[in-house]
Amino acid sequence: MKITVLRLGHRFIRDKRISTHIGLVARALGADKLILDAPDDDVKRSVWKVVENWGGEFEICFTDDWKGYIKDFGGERIHLTMYGININEVLDDIKASKKDKLIIIGGEKVPPGVYSLVDRNIAIGNQPHSEVAALAVFLDRLFEGKELNKKFEGKKMIVPKSRGKKVLNER
Amino acid sequence: MKITVLRLGHRFIRDKRISTHIGLVARALGADKLILDAPDDDVKRSVWKVVENWGGEFEICFTDDWKGYIKDFGGERIHLTMYGININEVLDDIKASKKDKLIIIGGEKVPPGVYSLVDRNIAIGNQPHSEVAALAVFLDRLFEGKELNKKFEGKKMIVPKSRGKKVLNER
Repeated sequence: MKITVLRLGHRFIRDKRISTHIGLVARALGADKLILDAPDDDVKRSVWKVVENWGGEFEICFTDDWKGYIKDFGGERIHLTMYGININEVLDDIKASKKDKLIIIGGEKVPPGVYSLVDRNIAIGNQPHSEVAALAVFLDRLFEGKELNKKFEGKKMIVPKSRGKKVLNER
Repeated sequence: MKITVLRLGHRFIRDKRISTHIGLVARALGADKLILDAPDDDVKRSVWKVVENWGGEFEICFTDDWKGYIKDFGGERIHLTMYGININEVLDDIKASKKDKLIIIGGEKVPPGVYSLVDRNIAIGNQPHSEVAALAVFLDRLFEGKELNKKFEGKKMIVPKSRGKKVLNER
């Protein structure tokens, strides 16, 4: 099962760090690819630097036709929105399908057309919070936490410690 | 069990949106209070506006002595850091304790002293990603997903829908 994350409504400057966090969360929690709806090379560079240093097969790219991308996606299209159905009610259904998934995250100003283009509108709770958090909780639930045990083969690797920091470099 | 989130290393301008997301995630996923180590009124105002509209008992305040705050906290002090022990290995232990919890999140430049001031250094995976995501996954794991069913009594309330948006206002 491949997971692609589509980040809509990216605004340059204002959203650079949020979109970068989205990319890093996608990579660290088991997604395969991030697509932004605006060609922000700074975000691409920041995420790419992490991939280069810490490993993994993560891809990041841009689209100027997000509607077409959603329509043509060959798998399940899931929009994370606080207006949707609480994930607690539908998680078992979502996990039952092994289809590839497109996870769409917008933010405050998501274009209204999105709701009807997707297969599911899912809420990580029906309260306003954060698209970064929504993506993280969704992936953690989907993979039942096992994504946090995934090994990445990178130049850098952390040796987990109960105190302090230990990083192996240039292995 | 009360949950307080301590956000260290908040930098004005650069971190406004990230710290706001942290506050909103803390509130929406079952924490009771956010403390920032810098008196940023914009962040306070943004989080407070959500509390005012959407309800709940969430508090937000500042400290100029985060070391003292950690030392004096009467409960379990848990630092979320990618250098720590993977949460998958210690979640059962953490859940077994019903003590109040102080969740400390820093970011890239967390002061080195933090690691030895706390009871546990816990990694939401040992890969770089996002303090917003780390907090969200931690709370979702701690409360076993039940936090997303919590009812907030606010002026606004979402009626979950599989398509589109429905919000009740000024109930």
